[in-house]
Amino acid sequence: MYGQRQSAEPAVGHPERVTITNVSPQLDGGRYAIKRVIGDEVKVSADIVADGHEVLSAVVLHRPDGERRWNEVAMTPTENDRWEASFRVSSVGQHVYTFQAWIDAFKTWRRDMIRRVETGQGTSVDLLIGAELIARAADRATGAESTELQRRADAVRASAERDPGFAAEQALDEQLARLMGKYPDRRLASVYEKTLPITVDREKARFSAWYEMFPRSCSPEPGRHGTFRDCIARLPYVAAMGFDVLYLPPIHPIGCDHRKGKNNSTVAGPDDVGSPWAIGSRDGGHKSILRELGTMEDFHALVGAARRQGLEVALDLAYQCAPDHPYVREHPEWFHIRPDGTVQYAENPPKKYEDIVPINFDTEHWRELWAELKDIVLFWIGHGIRIFRVDNPHTKPFSFWEWLIAEIKRDYPDVLFLAEAFTRPKVMYELAKRGFSQSYTYFAWRNARWELAEYFTELTQTEVKEFFRPNLWPNTPDILTENLQLGGRAAFMARAVLAGTLGASYGIYGPAFELCENRSIRPGSEEYLDSEKYQLRYWDISRADSLKDWIARINQARRENPCLQSDASLKFHSTDNDNFIAYSKSTDDLSSVVVVVVNLNSHQKHSGWLTLTLEELGLREHEPYQMHDLMSDARYVWQGPRNYIELDPGVAPAHVFRVRRRIRSEHGVDYFE
Amino acid sequence: MYGQRQSAEPAVGHPERVTITNVSPQLDGGRYAIKRVIGDEVKVSADIVADGHEVLSAVVLHRPDGERRWNEVAMTPTENDRWEASFRVSSVGQHVYTFQAWIDAFKTWRRDMIRRVETGQGTSVDLLIGAELIARAADRATGAESTELQRRADAVRASAERDPGFAAEQALDEQLARLMGKYPDRRLASVYEKTLPITVDREKARFSAWYEMFPRSCSPEPGRHGTFRDCIARLPYVAAMGFDVLYLPPIHPIGCDHRKGKNNSTVAGPDDVGSPWAIGSRDGGHKSILRELGTMEDFHALVGAARRQGLEVALDLAYQCAPDHPYVREHPEWFHIRPDGTVQYAENPPKKYEDIVPINFDTEHWRELWAELKDIVLFWIGHGIRIFRVDNPHTKPFSFWEWLIAEIKRDYPDVLFLAEAFTRPKVMYELAKRGFSQSYTYFAWRNARWELAEYFTELTQTEVKEFFRPNLWPNTPDILTENLQLGGRAAFMARAVLAGTLGASYGIYGPAFELCENRSIRPGSEEYLDSEKYQLRYWDISRADSLKDWIARINQARRENPCLQSDASLKFHSTDNDNFIAYSKSTDDLSSVVVVVVNLNSHQKHSGWLTLTLEELGLREHEPYQMHDLMSDARYVWQGPRNYIELDPGVAPAHVFRVRRRIRSEHGVDYFE
Repeated sequence: MYGQRQSAEPAVGHPERVTITNVSPQLDGGRYAIKRVIGDEVKVSADIVADGHEVLSAVVLHRPDGERRWNEVAMTPTENDRWEASFRVSSVGQHVYTFQAWIDAFKTWRRDMIRRVETGQGTSVDLLIGAELIARAADRATGAESTELQRRADAVRASAERDPGFAAEQALDEQLARLMGKYPDRRLASVYEKTLPITVDREKARFSAWYEMFPRSCSPEPGRHGTFRDCIARLPYVAAMGFDVLYLPPIHPIGCDHRKGKNNSTVAGPDDVGSPWAIGSRDGGHKSILRELGTMEDFHALVGAARRQGLEVALDLAYQCAPDHPYVREHPEWFHIRPDGTVQYAENPPKKYEDIVPINFDTEHWRELWAELKDIVLFWIGHGIRIFRVDNPHTKPFSFWEWLIAEIKRDYPDVLFLAEAFTRPKVMYELAKRGFSQSYTYFAWRNARWELAEYFTELTQTEVKEFFRPNLWPNTPDILTENLQLGGRAAFMARAVLAGTLGASYGIYGPAFELCENRSIRPGSEEYLDSEKYQLRYWDISRADSLKDWIARINQARRENPCLQSDASLKFHSTDNDNFIAYSKSTDDLSSVVVVVVNLNSHQKHSGWLTLTLEELGLREHEPYQMHDLMSDARYVWQGPRNYIELDPGVAPAHVFRVRRRIRSEHGVDYFE
Repeated sequence: MYGQRQSAEPAVGHPERVTITNVSPQLDGGRYAIKRVIGDEVKVSADIVADGHEVLSAVVLHRPDGERRWNEVAMTPTENDRWEASFRVSSVGQHVYTFQAWIDAFKTWRRDMIRRVETGQGTSVDLLIGAELIARAADRATGAESTELQRRADAVRASAERDPGFAAEQALDEQLARLMGKYPDRRLASVYEKTLPITVDREKARFSAWYEMFPRSCSPEPGRHGTFRDCIARLPYVAAMGFDVLYLPPIHPIGCDHRKGKNNSTVAGPDDVGSPWAIGSRDGGHKSILRELGTMEDFHALVGAARRQGLEVALDLAYQCAPDHPYVREHPEWFHIRPDGTVQYAENPPKKYEDIVPINFDTEHWRELWAELKDIVLFWIGHGIRIFRVDNPHTKPFSFWEWLIAEIKRDYPDVLFLAEAFTRPKVMYELAKRGFSQSYTYFAWRNARWELAEYFTELTQTEVKEFFRPNLWPNTPDILTENLQLGGRAAFMARAVLAGTLGASYGIYGPAFELCENRSIRPGSEEYLDSEKYQLRYWDISRADSLKDWIARINQARRENPCLQSDASLKFHSTDNDNFIAYSKSTDDLSSVVVVVVNLNSHQKHSGWLTLTLEELGLREHEPYQMHDLMSDARYVWQGPRNYIELDPGVAPAHVFRVRRRIRSEHGVDYFE
């Protein structure tokens, strides 16, 4: 679809003289789209060269995909034949851009004529050449501008012989040059051989705070299966923390065949509720709701109530089945059948997942399969859902995702997909390139300062930023890291700050997170003890030690400081104590600057010196500035690049400083913005 | 032509699961060819990923362009989903390569079965799955191997239930695994979307020593116009210096209109011979020979005599005309006509070149023009020429060169083109990408150690090496650098060593060079005084101070040390005195290693310490090695990485050390290879 030439203007059969190469940004030669959100600036650049010494002009052309008219922005040469421009994308959906460049005859003539006049070499013949160029531009122009150009061409021509000085003055007039710039001869313009795609999403693709919650554990009474109605009652609690996405694990009927019991036991008792990811039973599959949660009406009520509180419900898209899912009976051709006639369950030898059968994407009947899988997404879109968290996308073909996401976004460009692929880096990147709006990351396992700095520099300061939008989760129902198991409450506090400020998008699995649940099923395992994946849990969300207020402050800081709403400006700063990590984010205009310092050691108070690169933060060497800690609301007045930091994990393991510049100083008192 | 998919095998309509990206080497997504010479190894790599956890197989496919059968080489995974392979190109001409990768069902099954056996989980059903895979491979195989596979499938199947242990042993047999590796199921293989081009040249494209000589100045008598016969007499002199390309400036009739006089004067006297680059007169144009030089028979005699002495004649291809060139009269449509009816001469205001009219490549009649320009090349090919030095290619369209060179090389793949483009870096690189075999460089103006190291690192250690073959000229008829003007004989000696050892291809303009001609037309100018471009010169090549022996030693070192015949291994070494530059070249197997040290200050003796990275040169810390200076024939025994250097420009400004390793040590005496 992309990467193919779509001529921006009819071309003449003449060989091109201008070459446009090394275009940036582009992914795999235009094979994949770069990602932006609505209103973003797209900065583009290219090497543009031609033979000879003539003057070139170049433009970037862009438009929403499918529109006919290109928008054109002039490019500016910088150094070493590099040209630049930028434009804004102002609608959600696919956009494309390409380039055109040409040898500008009038600009060349004008440059040379100026040199001739300066050296007294201008002749009437040179002036007649100029007049001819102006007259031809008049033919390309229309209306008053055409008349004006013709008038000027005639004037130059008339005086070329008689009064060459006057004619030169006329021909080199600045106003004429501007007018000529509107009507260049582009018949021989080079058109860049590709149109490059941009996926423009709504803002939430870049900036989002997710809260994952098991509806069945929302019951206010221990032991009772939670319902959508219970979820509705829980919404104010989630909204008060400041989240904007409420993500629910699968809400579908849960398989009975080979159902798992508590703590992942292979034998389920009669009361065991099973894993929500073992989707499908006699009650239905991916388009049905687990009876215990409520009805479709209840679900609509939840989605609506959430929206009214600023929360958008995200569903889980887990393309796999319990052995008793209706698909297995109705479409055995979509599954692997073993020589003994049984359906192949999921395994990664020696591990076996008997409660789940994977879909066979190699099936000859892939067209029908893909159509049905797409239909599931459309079904839930029909029920008001616009965000999907996709379970294990790396075990389904890349080509499937590319197709599915493009199909959905063609009609619903506001739909977002979060890839839950914890796998090898290049596989994660490939999935993002194929269309996922956001991606889980290795954040949960990056603990040391160098690990975090290296990883987030890769994600935010390399080409990866063009297609991979990180979503940072300190925990998930599958991931209780050693750091959280051993670090106590301070570790949860620190990881929440890191997630919410390193990542413009982040999420927590609650209430386990804010209640600092840290018991693992056994030492060395990242599985929760009594995991909600296999049983109901009752959470006392009113506990005094809950981190809900800490989290609310993080989300408030994110909302009030635009610099925390994207990742592109992330920069690490040095400290003389390796237990600290320090970094900043800022907006382009430096109107919003935040510096975060975290003590990564959850057990010990640490102190040390932080060195900031002042200029990058909009600060001056000899002027004091105020560091306003948005977590504690304390304000410190600092001066110069080096300042002292002390963080006691027993109190608070992190500062989230809003940098406030001095706006005036009176009677020895400084005032800060 | 390239960059488009040419299926390596028929594909099935099934979506691909394996993705091949980030292929290396490739230029602009396969738009341009990488360059190799015959016998070279092509090392390729790619990121290859698929969904899931199955085992992949991958191959690189390559063939001479136009052949039907692909040659296939298995790829090996390295780290982080990167796969590698290499192959050799064994014929001159265009080659192409591409990739295929697939999910290998048997390898996956075998890996999983081994894990199952290890954990005691293997079942007869698993074995039957394996037997089925073997039986299907038997269907793909033929002859004895098919029978053998079928036999083994039956054996596994037969014992799967009865004796699973035995069946597993059979199924996991190593020999069977190798046989299965020959017959994978590649129906769903992913074929890389492009075929990538390689231009394979003869060896001289990479390794060549050029001598530029004006035939008209070869006369043994001062004042007489030299002839091709005089050139023949001069051949032994050139051959004795060890050159292998004899490049002649244009040999065509020289224009009379606006002919330049001595020292570029705009008025020519009756005896002035004009510039050979002002091509064409009533006597003919680009396919004619200047009468004073001789006849076509004389030319043939020169070409043949040169060949017998190991010298290949290269001609100048200067696509421009004197005002009295026949083309101007016969094809005015190929030139710019000014409003007063005159033909536009060359200019770069305020500079004017009235003796030359440039060709108008924007002409509507470009097809006829291009055809004629190609015909010029074919004409000289018909007269035995296979190397062209192209004058100012950067003032003619890239697309023209790409077409011309491809057209010529299609029928004459052994033809080489050297681009004389002294212009902006990206324009020089673009010309090389479009097909030039070799390119002039900025070498002449790189004098300081850091300048040389930076520039030659860019040329030899980055992607540039894939398409740009540097040809290093310390002087040309247009370039007498300040360094040579002021540095005396030592500067010529140093620059010759630098050119001949930094560059596998280099050239000098002689006899001006070896006779250390250093008089410029005026201070601050790089133009020679009494330049051969505008007059005859008589050169006394027997002068005692000639550098012919010094140059002969450089060329001998180049011939006898394979490491000097390519640029890929170039590495700079550190010295504690900035007046020294030190670098090494080595073959892959380290059988040939040369270390060059040059004193860049032509006026002062310098000494200092050189630090070598021993391991890279195949040397050991505690073993002595011999440094054999190929310029002076002196031999020094060194040990360890740091050694003392002293170079007196009055004696010799450079060492060209062949590194000789110790081969044995007896009775306290070391012997070196």
